[in-house]
Amino acid sequence: MAKEITPRSENYSQWYLDIVKKAGLAENSAVRGSMVIKPYGYAIWENIKEDLDRRFKETGHQNAYFPLFIPKSFLSKEADHVEGFAKECAVVTHHRLMNNPDGSGVVVDPSAKLEEELIVRPTSETIIWNTYKNWIKSYRDLPLLINQWANVVRWEMRTRPFLRTAEFLWQEGHTAHATKEEAIQEAKQMHDVYADFAESVMAMPVIKGSKSESERFAGALDTFTIEAMMQDGKALQAGTSHFLGQNFAKAFEVKFLNNENKEEFVWATSWGVSTRLVGALIMTHSDDDGLVLPPKLAPIQVVIVPIPKPNEKILEVANGITTKLKSKGISVKIDIDDKKRPGFKFAEYEMMGVPIRLGIGMRDLDKGVVEVARRDTKEKNAIPLANIEDYIENLLVEIQDNLFQKALNFRKERTSYVDTFEEFKNVLEDKGGFIYAHWDGTAETEEKIKELTKATIRCIPLDAKDEKGVDMISGKPSKNRVLFAKAY
Amino acid sequence: MAKEITPRSENYSQWYLDIVKKAGLAENSAVRGSMVIKPYGYAIWENIKEDLDRRFKETGHQNAYFPLFIPKSFLSKEADHVEGFAKECAVVTHHRLMNNPDGSGVVVDPSAKLEEELIVRPTSETIIWNTYKNWIKSYRDLPLLINQWANVVRWEMRTRPFLRTAEFLWQEGHTAHATKEEAIQEAKQMHDVYADFAESVMAMPVIKGSKSESERFAGALDTFTIEAMMQDGKALQAGTSHFLGQNFAKAFEVKFLNNENKEEFVWATSWGVSTRLVGALIMTHSDDDGLVLPPKLAPIQVVIVPIPKPNEKILEVANGITTKLKSKGISVKIDIDDKKRPGFKFAEYEMMGVPIRLGIGMRDLDKGVVEVARRDTKEKNAIPLANIEDYIENLLVEIQDNLFQKALNFRKERTSYVDTFEEFKNVLEDKGGFIYAHWDGTAETEEKIKELTKATIRCIPLDAKDEKGVDMISGKPSKNRVLFAKAY
Repeated sequence: MAKEITPRSENYSQWYLDIVKKAGLAENSAVRGSMVIKPYGYAIWENIKEDLDRRFKETGHQNAYFPLFIPKSFLSKEADHVEGFAKECAVVTHHRLMNNPDGSGVVVDPSAKLEEELIVRPTSETIIWNTYKNWIKSYRDLPLLINQWANVVRWEMRTRPFLRTAEFLWQEGHTAHATKEEAIQEAKQMHDVYADFAESVMAMPVIKGSKSESERFAGALDTFTIEAMMQDGKALQAGTSHFLGQNFAKAFEVKFLNNENKEEFVWATSWGVSTRLVGALIMTHSDDDGLVLPPKLAPIQVVIVPIPKPNEKILEVANGITTKLKSKGISVKIDIDDKKRPGFKFAEYEMMGVPIRLGIGMRDLDKGVVEVARRDTKEKNAIPLANIEDYIENLLVEIQDNLFQKALNFRKERTSYVDTFEEFKNVLEDKGGFIYAHWDGTAETEEKIKELTKATIRCIPLDAKDEKGVDMISGKPSKNRVLFAKAY
Repeated sequence: MAKEITPRSENYSQWYLDIVKKAGLAENSAVRGSMVIKPYGYAIWENIKEDLDRRFKETGHQNAYFPLFIPKSFLSKEADHVEGFAKECAVVTHHRLMNNPDGSGVVVDPSAKLEEELIVRPTSETIIWNTYKNWIKSYRDLPLLINQWANVVRWEMRTRPFLRTAEFLWQEGHTAHATKEEAIQEAKQMHDVYADFAESVMAMPVIKGSKSESERFAGALDTFTIEAMMQDGKALQAGTSHFLGQNFAKAFEVKFLNNENKEEFVWATSWGVSTRLVGALIMTHSDDDGLVLPPKLAPIQVVIVPIPKPNEKILEVANGITTKLKSKGISVKIDIDDKKRPGFKFAEYEMMGVPIRLGIGMRDLDKGVVEVARRDTKEKNAIPLANIEDYIENLLVEIQDNLFQKALNFRKERTSYVDTFEEFKNVLEDKGGFIYAHWDGTAETEEKIKELTKATIRCIPLDAKDEKGVDMISGKPSKNRVLFAKAY
């Protein structure tokens, strides 16, 4: 089964598509650019959602739900926003179908044309700020801390499951504040929430930084990002948090009376992550035998395979272990299929990225042991049955840590510091990965580098050290290095 | 605050709208027929979702996600379905906007017309069965037990928050089976799941039955429904589960090889409940002072109000109680606002339907008691502080039971058995409510009764007793009574 996957070294893009398909995560649908998220892929997304939702609530946010449709005129209200978002999107123009007089099916009823076209939300700033106008009157109504889990649509030309699809699932936080400082603080807080989630739950190391002006969200004054390195050395923007200033408040006239009874515009943030994270997860950990999942997000953390097939004694032991693991909150599946061979099952669960596989056979049981196989390192060990649940609990933690360390080491190996553009181009071509280099802070050199190399400034790292240097292109002074990479 | 609600006796519809507004559940949006679900309303929906999702998983279902858009041609494939669903819906015809040359904003780009229009899903049978075609080859792929949580759009002319909106949130289960018997069994199982959820979690008694042919879901061979009585005596269809026969399998050519290696069409079910349940909840329990929520769905189960305002001692006691309640899984809010008077807060939490309110004042504390007020009965009692958490835990159970019993008694009082059409009309006009009467089983008399009285057959109850009688209109023989009512 594993043999059916294209190796990464041969064709990285095909390897990714093979994993998405063979692990049963998603597939293309009959609708151009829209995917079907299959049960196993959706279960991973549910785990991501559950953990993030808890973090949002712990930081004081509440969920709400706003309309799918946005009146076309709303998109014209914030000038930068319209440039960035109002172009490639799905437009609803009619509200009725009718039977085709020729009996061939249904056609659009021309008499049911909408007075104003509706846009399927590509993001919800406009409809939400139009709503906030009625919710915010005084400083007592602030801060307003709201999140929405929703589907959005952006008419993408070139799509790839999870990474870029016309319709995708995401969450979008939209908050309103009385002061600039508080709004910036909120945007940074959610940036931290994303980074901590990525590292501690997804086991995916990220670089935290702010975007250059040209890479910012349309309408934002500052965009904070987390950037992860995929196994082909390219960067993936995994989550962004935006300080929106008063742009949307001004566009939708959202004012409040401050505690001195003076009218002011409200300060805003928005922040989001999407099903793209599932793509990031795949490309951070998986190998040529299939998906590799961090235990904290694995729908099945432990699978028990009877060897060579289930019998009463084996199932008794398997059920005993299962009960103990479940009481520790560990998810377990016993594979009771008696038609498939163990070897076939092993390959199947490797493909699905199940972190731990227990093989239980009569010979091992006679010795009081079971075989424990790790998905991450492929190690197998005979482990005594007594207190096996503690062993497994610890092993799940170890696997989680190992995956993070492995990804971190990979990133370190693929990270370079260069000072000249010659060197920059050579490193990018030969080694790829992340490159820290000096930049003069202008859009011109940023654009030139992008044109010549396809690498972009992923972020200005928050932890950048003061270090004098000169821009690789312009030779103008720079006071610290920024992160360049080719990106998804 | 409570005074702002229109009493039920004065204007029932306005009472409903007042509660939706004053309790902060939802509001109309800028998009015709689409509502904004506000945080408190959404928190109730989240509780509904969480409980149902657990029940779906316990019965072997997995979640997945299918596209928002459905190619227009799909809707023509199942003849009954198209009649029922393909008419009033949102139609996407273009995929791009462009700047208006006159600088006035954005307009639809006429060059970006889609080759085939896309319909925003009104329900997902067609896109899902088109997908299942590739998932089902053999009896080993069956049963396929899938659920989706999603938004859907039906272009409704007259809308009311939660009860009928153009866009709403729901879940839709779509299952595939090898045999007719198994599919019917599944449809009945989910009918039972809905009924048990309605009664044990929503505290809303329901009548379980099957729909008459003319009230069935478009494309179904049998529709099972749960019908609840609202406080105006009208029926509300709260959830339906459909046996779809082989209609969709035939329309989308979904066949499987049975265990004798012969090709057969697959048998199908679908089942769903929506944000309409929030409307049902409001109209089952609430009163002229605001929302009343069953404890199992209340976002805040217990609120603690310091009297007259917070001080160190009161907060110490409040925090102690909170810790103990939280360890029992009970949600608690301490209202530490020191600007609002207790009376104002009392009215506010009554409006929000918080099941239990604890008033903590210094005088009471000196006596070792706190004031416990129930939202359902408005009773207040001084309860000793010692083991107050056990008292509250029991009281929440008592309130849950009481709400169910109260609703059940209300339904009993408003339920009539009639034998003549004269009597039927009189009862419907004077008393309203549910009416059990004989029916000859034909669409003709059903239609006639609907025309003359606006009452419809809500269901043929599953527990209908054999009882010979004659149809009120036709005089033809009938072998049991069916349930009539005016309905939402």
